[in-house]
Amino acid sequence: MAPKYKLYYFNGRGSAEPIRYLLSYLGEEFEDVRYKFEDWPTIKPTTPFGKVPILEIDGKKYPQSVALSRYLGKKAGLGGKDSWEDLQIDIIVDTIGDIRQDMSGILVEKDEKVKAQKKEKFANETISFYFEKLEAIAKANNGYLANKKLSWADIYFAAALSVFSGAAGKDIVSHYPNLAALQKTINSNPRIRTWIDKRPKTDF
Amino acid sequence: MAPKYKLYYFNGRGSAEPIRYLLSYLGEEFEDVRYKFEDWPTIKPTTPFGKVPILEIDGKKYPQSVALSRYLGKKAGLGGKDSWEDLQIDIIVDTIGDIRQDMSGILVEKDEKVKAQKKEKFANETISFYFEKLEAIAKANNGYLANKKLSWADIYFAAALSVFSGAAGKDIVSHYPNLAALQKTINSNPRIRTWIDKRPKTDF
Repeated sequence: MAPKYKLYYFNGRGSAEPIRYLLSYLGEEFEDVRYKFEDWPTIKPTTPFGKVPILEIDGKKYPQSVALSRYLGKKAGLGGKDSWEDLQIDIIVDTIGDIRQDMSGILVEKDEKVKAQKKEKFANETISFYFEKLEAIAKANNGYLANKKLSWADIYFAAALSVFSGAAGKDIVSHYPNLAALQKTINSNPRIRTWIDKRPKTDF
Repeated sequence: MAPKYKLYYFNGRGSAEPIRYLLSYLGEEFEDVRYKFEDWPTIKPTTPFGKVPILEIDGKKYPQSVALSRYLGKKAGLGGKDSWEDLQIDIIVDTIGDIRQDMSGILVEKDEKVKAQKKEKFANETISFYFEKLEAIAKANNGYLANKKLSWADIYFAAALSVFSGAAGKDIVSHYPNLAALQKTINSNPRIRTWIDKRPKTDF
């Protein structure tokens, strides 16, 4: 019997979106639970390590979005052929994690003026710094981010991109032809397209 | 011929220490390059993504400490037997990464009074929160952090612990018998012991 999946997060794409993309790519049904912020203090102590996203697999709850994405990516046949190829994939995914960390200051900022400044800095400095390098990597890898072939790093990137664009408040990929093409490739996958079309509309 | 390793970081244990532990466990020689902070602005633009640690393998430079630790851990035969076991290992390692992130505010704090407060909070709140849960996991897993057997997550933990203790400014593990025993097991490995004895003395 196919495993039963239930994903717990807030009402946003955030760090849950790569898991949603990968479950969709796999063709797996999943229940997409979205907590209200006001309920979080009550829910937090019931989670494995006080954080979401959490993926429930056959009734048991597992935290850590990157670990879960790697697991689902391998299940989808999108891992490397050996641990050397996996290293190249993991380097990309953890680098996307560094971008995410630079972004997190925007989301929690309450002062609208400071928030706008942080958005500008994120789009003009952080994204430029990383995307120039990722663009060069994609160019050297047949348009993919590792090992010259599709991997779960590419799906992870496309999902994260939908969050980064939201946080930056504008398109951030069109200046990078290989990254823009990669985004298009991933988002055109019929199952991922279906997910994007049906997902709740949120800012990021 | 065995690969030639060169590790680049600052003069500290930090996020490079798990790589040093794993290379030592593997019995691999490595050149341990320690940058001076004042040289970093010049060096940073020459790195793959503006960050250290970087491991040079046969003349090519690779970033991302967790990705590199996973690669070396698997090389040492300390990965899971399948991707399900790898998921359990990766959950632990990324959770240790969350602790590291909570710690990072201490290291950059310039105000000595605020730094002391942050140290207290880290030791009394962050460490207690996570170590209680990790202690229960170790208790349920024959003293290890995943899959009831030694994995690279255990070595990663012992290396990170040497950093967390330094940042907290005190012993943080003695109240957790399974974690304390695990630390002892890892640090008693003869090759890791040799590394600990010869490494430069730094605060964290």
